[in-house]
Amino acid sequence: MDVIAPIADMRQWSRQALIAGKRTAFVPTMGALHRGHISLVEKARTLADRVVVSIYVNPTQFDNPEDLAKYPQTLEADLAMCREAGVDAVWTPQTAEMYPDGYCSFIDVVGPLTDKLCAVARPGHFRGVCTVVAKLLGVVRPDVAVFGQKDLQQCLVVSRMVGDLNIGTEIIVAPTVRESDGLAMSSRNRRLSPDQRARALGLPRGLELARQAYRAGQVTSLKLIEIVAEELLVHEGVDLDYCDVVSLKGFKESEFADDACVLAAAVFVDGVRLIDHVPLAGQSIPVKAD
Amino acid sequence: MDVIAPIADMRQWSRQALIAGKRTAFVPTMGALHRGHISLVEKARTLADRVVVSIYVNPTQFDNPEDLAKYPQTLEADLAMCREAGVDAVWTPQTAEMYPDGYCSFIDVVGPLTDKLCAVARPGHFRGVCTVVAKLLGVVRPDVAVFGQKDLQQCLVVSRMVGDLNIGTEIIVAPTVRESDGLAMSSRNRRLSPDQRARALGLPRGLELARQAYRAGQVTSLKLIEIVAEELLVHEGVDLDYCDVVSLKGFKESEFADDACVLAAAVFVDGVRLIDHVPLAGQSIPVKAD
Repeated sequence: MDVIAPIADMRQWSRQALIAGKRTAFVPTMGALHRGHISLVEKARTLADRVVVSIYVNPTQFDNPEDLAKYPQTLEADLAMCREAGVDAVWTPQTAEMYPDGYCSFIDVVGPLTDKLCAVARPGHFRGVCTVVAKLLGVVRPDVAVFGQKDLQQCLVVSRMVGDLNIGTEIIVAPTVRESDGLAMSSRNRRLSPDQRARALGLPRGLELARQAYRAGQVTSLKLIEIVAEELLVHEGVDLDYCDVVSLKGFKESEFADDACVLAAAVFVDGVRLIDHVPLAGQSIPVKAD
Repeated sequence: MDVIAPIADMRQWSRQALIAGKRTAFVPTMGALHRGHISLVEKARTLADRVVVSIYVNPTQFDNPEDLAKYPQTLEADLAMCREAGVDAVWTPQTAEMYPDGYCSFIDVVGPLTDKLCAVARPGHFRGVCTVVAKLLGVVRPDVAVFGQKDLQQCLVVSRMVGDLNIGTEIIVAPTVRESDGLAMSSRNRRLSPDQRARALGLPRGLELARQAYRAGQVTSLKLIEIVAEELLVHEGVDLDYCDVVSLKGFKESEFADDACVLAAAVFVDGVRLIDHVPLAGQSIPVKAD
C-alpha cells in the first residue's frame, strides 16, 4: 500500500493508473476510521481496479473551532485498517499545501440542497465540503467515489456539485453502517463516554419510533418530529439541533410524510454533534433496549 | 479536425488522448474568432501534441442580457479558422447540457482579484467565468490552457482558481494581439461601425499616452488616469467604465505607479464594451494617428 502526502505525487500516481488503463475508486475520509468507512472501501473495491483513500481533516468545513480541535486523529490505526482492507494508496494531504497563503477559491451549491438542516446549523459547512471534495477529486481524478449515507445531505450536495461542474467522477452512496445497538457509526462516537454513548442512543431510537409511527399511518410531519424530540427528552444533556421531514423529491421540507421522505436529525450530546437520517420507506434500525 | 458537441464525446476524446500518452493544450473561446485567438492556438501548438478549442458563449458570465444577445456568432468561419490553424478538435458545448434544469453549483474567487475593475462593473461575471472554465477543464482535462492577456483580470482569476482547486491544468497567458492601429483584438470589435471603430481608438491611445507620461516620470496614478480620461473625452459617445492603476503585487489599486503596475481601462462606445490593459513596464502600443 502506498502512503502519499504531496499533491504532485498523488497526481502522478493517479495519472499512471489511468495510463495503465486502470479504473480508480476513491473514498475520501477525515480519518478515525471505523467499520462504516471500511464498508465504503469494500464497495469501492467492487467498482474499480484501484482504491484510493484520503485521510484529511479539512479545516474549511468546520464552523466550530472546538469541533475541529477535538476531531479524533488516529493515523497509524487508520493506515493499518486500510492495509487490512486492501487499499492501494492512502493519501494524506497537508493543510499547508491544500490551503496555502492567499487561498481564495470556493465552491457553493445554492438552492434547496443548502438552505436547511446542516447547512443552516453549520454556516459555511457545505462550502467547505464542496471545495475540498472538488480539490481531492481534481488530484485523484477517480472514475468513482464512494460516500456514506449517514451524511445524506452531504451526499446529495456533493453529487450535485460533481455533476454540475462536470468533474467526471461517478458518486456512489453506500448504506449507513450501525453499531449493534443502532447508533450510526461516526468518528465522533469516539468522543462519547459510556454514559454519553448510552444517551446518544436516543437519536436512532427516536428516529426508529417515528418511522414505526409513519408505517402505522402517522403522516403528519410535526407529529413524527415530536416523537423524535420526546425520545431525546428522556435523557438530560441531549439537545436537538434540528429534526425535519424532507422529501427527496426536490429536497423540500414536507408537511406530510410519504415514502419519498427522510427523517433527518442532528443532536448534541454534551457538545458532541451527531447526525442521522432514516428513509421512511426504508429498513428499520436495529435499536436495542437499554 | 474533430467537431464535437456532446460532453460525453469530448470527455472520451480527451481520455483517449491521455491514454495514448498525448499532451493536450486547450484554448477556451466564445467564438467569433480573430487573429488574437489564433495566436493562442499557435502558442498551444508549441506546448502539446493535441490542441482543443472550445467555442461557447457562456450565458452565466454576462451581466447584461443585451450584451449576450448581441455577442457575435460566426461558427462556420470559426471552424474554418481552426482547421486552417491545425486544431485537432473543436468542442461546441450546448447550453441545455452545460446548464440543465436545476443547475446550482458555482465557483467564486474572493478577495483582491475580484473586488475591483470588471468584477465591480459586471456583477457575477467572474463567478460565471470561473464556473464555466472549471466545467470546460473538467471535461477536456488538458495539461495546459492558453488565455489572452487582453482579459488580464480574467487570466489572474482563472489562474488562481485552477491552482486553488487543484484542477491540474497549467494556465498560460499569451500577449494581446492588436490591430495595426493599436486596438486590442476582440470579438466585440465586429459590433463597431467604421465611425465607432475610429472613436474606440481613444482607448489604446489614451493608455499609450499615459504609459509615455509614466516613462517620462509621472508616477501619480490619478494623473495617469486623467490622461486616459481626457483622450476619451475627445470623442462623443465614448464613456469610461473604469480606469485604474493596479499593482500586480497583490492586485491592489496603487496611488503611485511603478513597473509592477498595469493601467486597466474599460469603455463603452455607443454601448459596446471594450477593455484593455497596458503594463507600465511593457512595450508601447503601436497607436497610429487618425
